Amino acid sequence: MDTPIAHNLVIVSRISALRAAMKHENIHALLVPSSDPHLSEYLPERWKSREWLSGFAGSMGTLVVTLDRALLFADSRYWQQAERELASTGIALYKIKSGMSQEHVDWLATNVSANQTVAVDGAVLGLGAMRTLETALRAQDVKLRTDCDLMEAVWKDRPTLPQAPVYTHTAPHATVTRRDKLAATRAAMKNANADYHFISTLDDIAYLLNLRGSDVNFNPVFVAHLLIAPNYATLFVMPGKIPSAIEAELKADGVTLAAYDEASAALAKLSANSTLLIDPRRITQRTREAVPANVKVVEAINPTTFAKSRKTEAERAYVRETMEQDGAAMAEFYAWFEQAQGSERITEVTIDEKLTAYRARRPGFVSRSFATIAGFKANGALNHYRAEPATAAVIEGDGLLLIDSGGQYLGGTTDITRVWPIGNRAHITAEQKRDYTLVLKGTIALSVAKFPKGTKSPYLDAIARAPIWAAGFDYGHGTGHGVGYFMNVHEGPQTISQGMPDPHTAMEEGMITSIEPGLYRDGKWGIRIENLVLNVPAGNNGFGDFLQFETLTLCPIDTHLIDKTLLRSDEIDWLNTYHAEVARRLIPHVSGDTKEWLAARTKTI
Amino acid sequence: MDTPIAHNLVIVSRISALRAAMKHENIHALLVPSSDPHLSEYLPERWKSREWLSGFAGSMGTLVVTLDRALLFADSRYWQQAERELASTGIALYKIKSGMSQEHVDWLATNVSANQTVAVDGAVLGLGAMRTLETALRAQDVKLRTDCDLMEAVWKDRPTLPQAPVYTHTAPHATVTRRDKLAATRAAMKNANADYHFISTLDDIAYLLNLRGSDVNFNPVFVAHLLIAPNYATLFVMPGKIPSAIEAELKADGVTLAAYDEASAALAKLSANSTLLIDPRRITQRTREAVPANVKVVEAINPTTFAKSRKTEAERAYVRETMEQDGAAMAEFYAWFEQAQGSERITEVTIDEKLTAYRARRPGFVSRSFATIAGFKANGALNHYRAEPATAAVIEGDGLLLIDSGGQYLGGTTDITRVWPIGNRAHITAEQKRDYTLVLKGTIALSVAKFPKGTKSPYLDAIARAPIWAAGFDYGHGTGHGVGYFMNVHEGPQTISQGMPDPHTAMEEGMITSIEPGLYRDGKWGIRIENLVLNVPAGNNGFGDFLQFETLTLCPIDTHLIDKTLLRSDEIDWLNTYHAEVARRLIPHVSGDTKEWLAARTKTI
Repeated sequence: MDTPIAHNLVIVSRISALRAAMKHENIHALLVPSSDPHLSEYLPERWKSREWLSGFAGSMGTLVVTLDRALLFADSRYWQQAERELASTGIALYKIKSGMSQEHVDWLATNVSANQTVAVDGAVLGLGAMRTLETALRAQDVKLRTDCDLMEAVWKDRPTLPQAPVYTHTAPHATVTRRDKLAATRAAMKNANADYHFISTLDDIAYLLNLRGSDVNFNPVFVAHLLIAPNYATLFVMPGKIPSAIEAELKADGVTLAAYDEASAALAKLSANSTLLIDPRRITQRTREAVPANVKVVEAINPTTFAKSRKTEAERAYVRETMEQDGAAMAEFYAWFEQAQGSERITEVTIDEKLTAYRARRPGFVSRSFATIAGFKANGALNHYRAEPATAAVIEGDGLLLIDSGGQYLGGTTDITRVWPIGNRAHITAEQKRDYTLVLKGTIALSVAKFPKGTKSPYLDAIARAPIWAAGFDYGHGTGHGVGYFMNVHEGPQTISQGMPDPHTAMEEGMITSIEPGLYRDGKWGIRIENLVLNVPAGNNGFGDFLQFETLTLCPIDTHLIDKTLLRSDEIDWLNTYHAEVARRLIPHVSGDTKEWLAARTKTI
Repeated sequence: MDTPIAHNLVIVSRISALRAAMKHENIHALLVPSSDPHLSEYLPERWKSREWLSGFAGSMGTLVVTLDRALLFADSRYWQQAERELASTGIALYKIKSGMSQEHVDWLATNVSANQTVAVDGAVLGLGAMRTLETALRAQDVKLRTDCDLMEAVWKDRPTLPQAPVYTHTAPHATVTRRDKLAATRAAMKNANADYHFISTLDDIAYLLNLRGSDVNFNPVFVAHLLIAPNYATLFVMPGKIPSAIEAELKADGVTLAAYDEASAALAKLSANSTLLIDPRRITQRTREAVPANVKVVEAINPTTFAKSRKTEAERAYVRETMEQDGAAMAEFYAWFEQAQGSERITEVTIDEKLTAYRARRPGFVSRSFATIAGFKANGALNHYRAEPATAAVIEGDGLLLIDSGGQYLGGTTDITRVWPIGNRAHITAEQKRDYTLVLKGTIALSVAKFPKGTKSPYLDAIARAPIWAAGFDYGHGTGHGVGYFMNVHEGPQTISQGMPDPHTAMEEGMITSIEPGLYRDGKWGIRIENLVLNVPAGNNGFGDFLQFETLTLCPIDTHLIDKTLLRSDEIDWLNTYHAEVARRLIPHVSGDTKEWLAARTKTI
């Protein structure tokens, strides 16, 4: 962590300008998180300050700049990329244990002297992160400023807010009207004794208003805040983004527009002694600060987070249809891929292009739901691998190919991972088969689980891991994440991973979650088998209501990689039943070679 | 929850005297928890205030007395008993959801008016409970007093502190010297930057000093506090309890004695600017309050809690020997029991007597490790059932008999549950077999699990539940608890139950835990199959160190109740292998009929 040699003049001059601004404001250290006023996973260009300042383009990473040092805090998934992108910038890489760890907080508390000042833009800092930072700095008598955005001074050509128009998610795919969703939200507010509710999270707003946008990659959302009162609601959004027809519809439903930057002022004007509901995990420090002291704040999870996680019966039906279309596109891709191999030059990047093209021909397709991960051989073992045209591997010779991809459709969001053997199948090794079969056992073990309604999702994680643990192996990511309905591919509140089993992680009917255990061999191969599953009722035998999973994803799971001696008969039965269902539901949606390919790939084993 | 008719004159007069004392102190509501200054599971007589005041003898339950009402808060395990024992006392039963729920706090916050005063004896109130109570009451402007013990005024013949002498846990069974344990504790203190460490928990003190006592039921501990400084330690204990030979030994190891009630004064005298390590979950409000404001407090789990949970190699070896003795006693009991049935009148109470007598003949036996649960038919479904001589069921006719019992031995602590069919085996029903076999599958599923070292124990709970959940059933208790070494049968920090996966719940080598899934049919039968297991290394395949369980408990698992069609071949193999081990290790320790019984009950299925 010595200061590296700096001759990347663009970055050097930006950091230098930043330090001048820091000196001017008497700031000794600046914290630049990867975050925006909506605490989104994908950031609009305007809030990619950390990337602009450092040159590091990874999706997670925190920059700290002092008057004589600059450090980027990133976890192991990004070390290779960070080392490459930070070379010659003068910015040192600080290796942290996990994406969740707050080592930059400790670093600031230790390295900034008492009575010196740390600054961070409170407009992009989560309230929870702010509390942690404040406590750590106060213990060392370090001052904290959150009231200034130094980027305004140094980032001369900073992008404006996204201008893309907002559009309506219409019936029949939008299965509940905006009016009914607003009424349900107000009922939840009343239940929490709250007069007002303020929402900054983009998927909550898009869900509630049956609107969609394209302000960030992959998530069909738009940049806005929303204030809900008992008898009105105000959508704070860049002027011009809402077409007038939609503005009229919104008005009819009691939602009026205001400028994006007027949200804080509206909070400041809330009536004294009223009560405001906010979610402390989904609100920034700046927003919290805008609330007057005489307004009582109730902290709770956004009611819309629960509401959108529980898909309606109609939404479930559309998702099933969408899965047939998505599975058909996958089958068309694989059928083409197997024929084209050897005759065409296929790289990891062309896989993405071709697969997206097959999906794009399907009714209701809007966009990819995340950046396709196509990792051949050793690249499959890199969890956040994303092939670049210049360096993408060519698919040739023997090896395993992992493809993790998904689509946004008007009737649902998909996310699927399959692994396929490339080359001479006689060259598949016993180790590859063992790893693949263990992962498959993990997928099956959780797919068949029944559990009491209300079970906190983190406790289910070990069920998928147990067969992989049994061999002394493990995987370094969660087993599953919630998935939206034509919405974010990562949504809460449930998560099948070893995090905190808070009450809001309880499993309820209608939730959609991924099941995606894996096994990764550094430098060799990566395996992950991922399906989306729906929580459906599983009866009540006198011990309360139970849930089970309906597997939604429809696509063959490769059988050449299976070591059948490692599967129990009930596991083989599951796979054969699944493949029969895949064939039954996909074959009507495809033709020609793809039909044959599907028939061959869904044969019983 | 109407006020019941009160003509139990003893209780009525006690409550009446209490109210007079409350009025005198201007107290509007008194909270009487089931607790003592050491936050123990089993209370010395002196601190059974709640039982003395209310007549309710259950092990959990909180009493609230106001000037005109009295309520006992208890969960469903105790409702029957509470209704019987509270009849005619004027005390109403307030039914709460679980033993952990804090509904009495809400009740006080709601029912006591602003500016009125709630009192509780801070000497028996955990720091965590105090913080919860304080926050809830402050929100309603209700005052809280923790500085008075009204029981001193009203309980005229209140028992004194227990007088039983303390004795040494000697080598070889004590496998680490007191001197070495003190050195290790001081190393941990230094690591936490603490000058001092104060311990109130009796098992931590007994472990650390290699001393044992008999001040409470079942746990071989004695009432004391301990203050550890870098160069001395002070044991606060009732004068006369420590024999002079032990006093001399302690002195040689740097531990001096002081009177039990001088602990707070010693804390008050800690040097300014020194640092004190305490465990906020294992310390009372009174103790915390005794620490001067100029002493810095570090809150962390007691280092001894970790140390004693990780049994040494020598301790593991003694536990294996102890399990052979305990299993031999169990086998003798069951062999006698099967012969005696029909010819002798056997009740649930005589089972306890007879089983304890067989254990008592075994080398190293000290006492039972908890009150034997012998539940025949419907009684087996009551989770905290304890047969009383007057009402104990006679073991006759057809039915299932659940026996959960254990012993304290110089070389370990045991805890085992088995279920045995009574009567005509042809009358065993398909439902009984299904339930029993599902529970057995749960026990096996977790017994064979491998998992990464450091896995937080709550995440393992679902592995035992999955086979039972698969049938739509569940059990309303945790899957397993940590077990001490000639120490408390319930000890932390690990716990296999759906609680908070705090960092200290991480599974480490040498921990002993129970695996005890169950299935309970109200009014019909209860099934639980419980073994103790030891965390042993399971190698490292490049994914970090793994652990697996060595099953320690040795005793046949009934096979007549098994529905073999529900078992997989690997489950049958596990059972046969287990039974072969039971036979191999127990038969050398028994003779005559018991030998034959063991041979018959460990046959392969």
